[in-house]
Amino acid sequence: MRDVAIIGVGMTKWGELWEKSLRTNFTETALLALDDAGVDHLDSIVVGCMSSGLFTGQEHLGSLLPDYLARIPVPATRVESACCSGGLALRHGLMEIASGLNDIVLVGGVEKMTDVTGCEATFALGTAADQEYEGYHGATFPALYAMMAVDHMHRYGTTREHLAMVAVKNHANGSKNPLAQFPFKVTVEQVLSSVLVADPLHILDCSPITDGAACLVLTSVETARNLKKPFVRVAGTGHASDTIALSSRRDLSWIESTKIAAAKALAMAGRTIDDVDLFEVHDCFTIAEIMIMEALGLVPKGHGGPAVAEGLTALTGKYPVNPSGGLKAKGHPVGATGVAQAVEIVKQLRGEAGERQIKGARRGLAQNMGGTGGSSVVHVFEAE
Amino acid sequence: MRDVAIIGVGMTKWGELWEKSLRTNFTETALLALDDAGVDHLDSIVVGCMSSGLFTGQEHLGSLLPDYLARIPVPATRVESACCSGGLALRHGLMEIASGLNDIVLVGGVEKMTDVTGCEATFALGTAADQEYEGYHGATFPALYAMMAVDHMHRYGTTREHLAMVAVKNHANGSKNPLAQFPFKVTVEQVLSSVLVADPLHILDCSPITDGAACLVLTSVETARNLKKPFVRVAGTGHASDTIALSSRRDLSWIESTKIAAAKALAMAGRTIDDVDLFEVHDCFTIAEIMIMEALGLVPKGHGGPAVAEGLTALTGKYPVNPSGGLKAKGHPVGATGVAQAVEIVKQLRGEAGERQIKGARRGLAQNMGGTGGSSVVHVFEAE
Repeated sequence: MRDVAIIGVGMTKWGELWEKSLRTNFTETALLALDDAGVDHLDSIVVGCMSSGLFTGQEHLGSLLPDYLARIPVPATRVESACCSGGLALRHGLMEIASGLNDIVLVGGVEKMTDVTGCEATFALGTAADQEYEGYHGATFPALYAMMAVDHMHRYGTTREHLAMVAVKNHANGSKNPLAQFPFKVTVEQVLSSVLVADPLHILDCSPITDGAACLVLTSVETARNLKKPFVRVAGTGHASDTIALSSRRDLSWIESTKIAAAKALAMAGRTIDDVDLFEVHDCFTIAEIMIMEALGLVPKGHGGPAVAEGLTALTGKYPVNPSGGLKAKGHPVGATGVAQAVEIVKQLRGEAGERQIKGARRGLAQNMGGTGGSSVVHVFEAE
Repeated sequence: MRDVAIIGVGMTKWGELWEKSLRTNFTETALLALDDAGVDHLDSIVVGCMSSGLFTGQEHLGSLLPDYLARIPVPATRVESACCSGGLALRHGLMEIASGLNDIVLVGGVEKMTDVTGCEATFALGTAADQEYEGYHGATFPALYAMMAVDHMHRYGTTREHLAMVAVKNHANGSKNPLAQFPFKVTVEQVLSSVLVADPLHILDCSPITDGAACLVLTSVETARNLKKPFVRVAGTGHASDTIALSSRRDLSWIESTKIAAAKALAMAGRTIDDVDLFEVHDCFTIAEIMIMEALGLVPKGHGGPAVAEGLTALTGKYPVNPSGGLKAKGHPVGATGVAQAVEIVKQLRGEAGERQIKGARRGLAQNMGGTGGSSVVHVFEAE
């Protein structure tokens, strides 16, 4: 199989973008990525989007997006795996190039979430859970992650303050990211005194509802070399599933799909976790980042909370996690998140991350997941 | 890139399956395909589904389906391109194997459409059109295809009877298919006297609302040979887009995306259209089959209507089209349709199509499309 390179990235400011529709947001971002790559030709588009049907009454992005990008008849595919739709789009873009069927592929992620009411958005997001055994019984995602948090706190002594420190760290990082939805710092006290959503999770433990898009331009390493531009290699990819219902899991606060996907991606890259200089992970709730640290093997099971408190995952720590600000501060337009993780890592490996730059970063890992971990996609990136 | 083979197919009876949920329907069908392939191992699942969010309140099939198939942690991807989601799933399954990343892939298509009201189903299907410029102004798919039909009739002299003859042919074929939703014959008079939906289209010009699934097992030709089972090779694949809104097209009754996708698939297979022994095409409305015959080059532009009347596309004609009964008689569970087309062609090439068998068939072509042709996927299959 052919090796795959990222030669362009694009991202615009995320937030409540009432003046931009799904198509506008995607198109603006795609043009930035194509400009960055300096290519005019395009063989294919792969886009991650969770639920444009429920959020905007629009499916068939495979026709809409090339149309508005003025790229007809370029073929386009939408892939969906709830909140890891973006990571999955990267994986399928990679396979298109690895197979030799296409040479230059635009990988995008997009979600337009603020054109519906809060109740409708909660319902749309809830379709990532098991509708028959979770959704129809009233379980929403804050409630499901609250149960995971309670389990983790009960079994390992993780504290409310540990959870808050994830938000404090990610907002501190996000304050250095001008594209973040909430680029400001928060304190432990502010997290703990913010509105309670689902005990023990407060609103500042939760990632927000966001409009946003992110794009990458992929090609073969061979073509990238011919273009004589600096590029980042996608060295490994991994993808795994787990039960959709939380109640079917053997362990309520362990993300097995992430463990498996990460092992596959690292094996493909021929690396271990200690070879990685920075991590972008799926902190949809503060407890999620702690569970992911453990599933990735950054710390032993149950040790995530104290490790955050000790600064292990800070920008200057041994394992910098979410230098972009993560889903928490940067925002979480669900289909775009996995692609934006790759955008951040490419910027870091190119040394273009400004105030949040990890010095000398050569390798990064992105972990993206759907639901309560019913699916996970992990990629390993290397500077060339 | 590696050559790809189909070693197993599965399909169950389609219809209004109120006793089967989306997950049940998919699982039953997948087990049939795995039994047919005689394999136990599975590397990945790719499933086409248009709008499980709007039809059933359930996204995240990438977790749900491997879970209910008892295949956790096998990774699973949902792809969507409106009514050609199934054909696109086959294309991405093919790329997974061609890339060398996976060796045995289950490709499925599923749609559960009858758990919502008729109005809700019409809205969900309408999300394949341009919501801002078509849907919100009241255009539904029968209305859009009615405009295409009027254009074709006005410019080329196509008659109401020509349209009806497509339904008559496909129901005659479908009457020989025990899995079809409507396995009975109809007459021209019955079509013309059936309820008018959108002038000139009557209800018997329209494909129905259907619950159904279809599955394939793909592997590399090398692995298929080692398994010493008869297999069908996927010799060519093509995919193209067109504008999402009908009003943006240069020609209202010409499906350019199908022309381009078919040319790519045939070129990849090293074949011409005359090398193909049978065709499964996307007759979502009777006029669609006539436009597709022209886009595929079976007849010159504008000649589709008389060609149907002359029997060119009958089971015993020069170019047998839709021996399965097509979307018209077999049913149209949108995400499953493209996969079911491949199931029919594999059965034909294996000589297992019973009363509707095309004698000595060696090569088949499947054409699947989304919306009014905003996306098309074409595959060419060859018996080994």
